[in-house]
Amino acid sequence: MAEKVVIRPCRAEDCRQVVRLIRELAEFENLSEQVKISDQDLCEDGFGQDPFYKCLVAEVPPECHSQEGHTVVGYGLYFFTYSTWKGRNIYMEDLYVMPEFRGKGIGKKLMSSIAQVGLEQGCSQMRFAALDWNRSAIDFYLRQGAVDLTATEGWHFFRFEGDAMRGLARGESGSDQVPAPV
Amino acid sequence: MAEKVVIRPCRAEDCRQVVRLIRELAEFENLSEQVKISDQDLCEDGFGQDPFYKCLVAEVPPECHSQEGHTVVGYGLYFFTYSTWKGRNIYMEDLYVMPEFRGKGIGKKLMSSIAQVGLEQGCSQMRFAALDWNRSAIDFYLRQGAVDLTATEGWHFFRFEGDAMRGLARGESGSDQVPAPV
Repeated sequence: MAEKVVIRPCRAEDCRQVVRLIRELAEFENLSEQVKISDQDLCEDGFGQDPFYKCLVAEVPPECHSQEGHTVVGYGLYFFTYSTWKGRNIYMEDLYVMPEFRGKGIGKKLMSSIAQVGLEQGCSQMRFAALDWNRSAIDFYLRQGAVDLTATEGWHFFRFEGDAMRGLARGESGSDQVPAPV
Repeated sequence: MAEKVVIRPCRAEDCRQVVRLIRELAEFENLSEQVKISDQDLCEDGFGQDPFYKCLVAEVPPECHSQEGHTVVGYGLYFFTYSTWKGRNIYMEDLYVMPEFRGKGIGKKLMSSIAQVGLEQGCSQMRFAALDWNRSAIDFYLRQGAVDLTATEGWHFFRFEGDAMRGLARGESGSDQVPAPV
């Protein structure tokens, strides 16, 4: 079956299927309450004049559809970022394959395709994030040669949102005293 | 002096000064061997047809120049990213102010300006990374309302580069067996 899987660019009409998969992934990560996006948002943000992301989908032939009748069974969503140390990067925001289609190399094909796009675009790095309790995924990434920068160098992710972000933009919140190195 | 500091968009002719600051920041982070970028790279990547980043600089008047004669004394470099849960994000890749100009609110002005740009562009989040041993910077971010997603949710950063990235793109390295959720 693996050889029948096609990895192809996501089209606007796939957005509904991709949002279905985004919700499945968030449920797996126990963070589904954080999903605020609609298929209309995803379509506007990816297929408007100034797209915010790119996406690949994994599609199986109609005769191999999922139990519920789906043929889009996985996706890899990415965009380009920038390192002031190493220049252009490609960032893999999401990688997901439906449980019933796992173990067939589909996730690896998606990840490999994103790495190819990155190299073609002159990116020296491909970055992504994973949850520390998802050991099987992390072990897979490490086997492929990825480096855990949080473990090796101590990088932590931070986020401002909502009132904190609006307060920051108004220059209101917290102390004015900024410590090293800022 | 703080009121005389101007936060303005970086211009192509500032790239040499910004690379000087990029190197200072990497030295502070004890990771200066990772800086591979030249001012020409930075200029091409930020001021070509398809810019990979945006940058703000903090400039002091000529009479307030640094010991070595510089007037560009800080920078904040950012780009737009995407969350499949929450839509458009702004990502602050670097934030730096020269040591002799710290404690005057310049870093906060830069960070605040980036948050303003994010809100104007419809971003619901502003993200960034910090090194876990840089407690004074982390405490500052937390006081401003930032959330440490590595500590609270367990997100780790990963990177492929060099041979590992090329091997991945060729579909060569590691096992084909991909665990949940990919």
